Amino acid sequence: MTPHAYRLKRTFVGQLPNGADLYESLAKIVQAEDIIVGRIVAIGATTHAVVAYYDQKKKKYMKMEFPGGMEILTCTGNVSLRDGKPFVHIHILLGDRKGRVFGGHVMPGTKAFACEVFIDDFEGEELKRMHDEQTGLYVWQKNSVLG
Amino acid sequence: MTPHAYRLKRTFVGQLPNGADLYESLAKIVQAEDIIVGRIVAIGATTHAVVAYYDQKKKKYMKMEFPGGMEILTCTGNVSLRDGKPFVHIHILLGDRKGRVFGGHVMPGTKAFACEVFIDDFEGEELKRMHDEQTGLYVWQKNSVLG
Amino acid sequence: MTPHAYRLKRTFVGQLPNGADLYESLAKIVQAEDIIVGRIVAIGATTHAVVAYYDQKKKKYMKMEFPGGMEILTCTGNVSLRDGKPFVHIHILLGDRKGRVFGGHVMPGTKAFACEVFIDDFEGEELKRMHDEQTGLYVWQKNSVLG
Repeated sequence: MTPHAYRLKRTFVGQLPNGADLYESLAKIVQAEDIIVGRIVAIGATTHAVVAYYDQKKKKYMKMEFPGGMEILTCTGNVSLRDGKPFVHIHILLGDRKGRVFGGHVMPGTKAFACEVFIDDFEGEELKRMHDEQTGLYVWQKNSVLG
Repeated sequence: MTPHAYRLKRTFVGQLPNGADLYESLAKIVQAEDIIVGRIVAIGATTHAVVAYYDQKKKKYMKMEFPGGMEILTCTGNVSLRDGKPFVHIHILLGDRKGRVFGGHVMPGTKAFACEVFIDDFEGEELKRMHDEQTGLYVWQKNSVLG
Repeated sequence: MTPHAYRLKRTFVGQLPNGADLYESLAKIVQAEDIIVGRIVAIGATTHAVVAYYDQKKKKYMKMEFPGGMEILTCTGNVSLRDGKPFVHIHILLGDRKGRVFGGHVMPGTKAFACEVFIDDFEGEELKRMHDEQTGLYVWQKNSVLG
């Protein structure tokens, strides 16, 4: 059992400006604040969303677009290092006017109508993403396996 | 780049009583505990849910009801000040007996069958909601823009 | 108003190995790390999912399976004591290749393709699950009611 224990240093709380690109804005914030290991949660609404589903056999992301106003019912993500830079990985759940729900892996092109964000900034061992042959994903290094 | 850095003081953990109104109960707790900036997460089930979709063009919330037992698959929210009082903003995802998912902005009238809640209480600058002409929403003041 | 205030001691951050059983792995980690009160959040993907809907009238969980690759759009859970041992309670939201969303209460049998997990380990009063006649669930003891 490896510990992988982190200490919460501080939490950034704020909103993204109307029209902001959700993915690009969060990437910029974590790079500017030099967050090495982080956790993201947000709620709000989008004016347009671009998400992806990862095809585990083809090993590639398949993009989808959800135009028009949607609630951000929840948005969950994390921050770690990829190629030496803080990198965000974010999933989103969107709700339409009938309460139906859609979601996926957040891609650039997702625009915030309003977005209230919490970013936890942790202290501890670096988490580095490396390409993994088996899944085709950039996953955290093997020494970050829990359990 | 403004810091907007908060420190986690303590986390309230507990359940809502069976039959509690989800929105009203959380509002009462954060006011009683004087939480100025907070983060909420919960899971559980509802016996009835009232949620809303915000129509970005009409600038108004459209209500929907989901009667009967539903899983609370996740519930994400925050606490800030509106009119000088702690105010909760909560989104919810509900699951039915076929695993289908619905969701929206939580309104009064959503009744808990069971609900296990975490409320993080942060120390830092006040976050105040003010009416915003552009979106029609009560958003956090401009000085709380991240990035 | 009872306080139920907890202090965050540390946060475990890491990934589950490819092929891990989501429920069993998280149960094993919290038991090995002796987490008494915890909060779980994760994103990733499954190769197969087994979830349940709780029928509030029949007072039993109805299982459903979602075979094939699905995104873990978010996974929310907590840790408390049941029969004196750390016990995990987890809900999940899954996304398919069309962005459609399904979800429920996570059961053993849910297999991770990739899964990035945060587990908050809190210090404070024990939270014990006891059988509750009214709901048929193992809920936290009455002294853990908030509000």
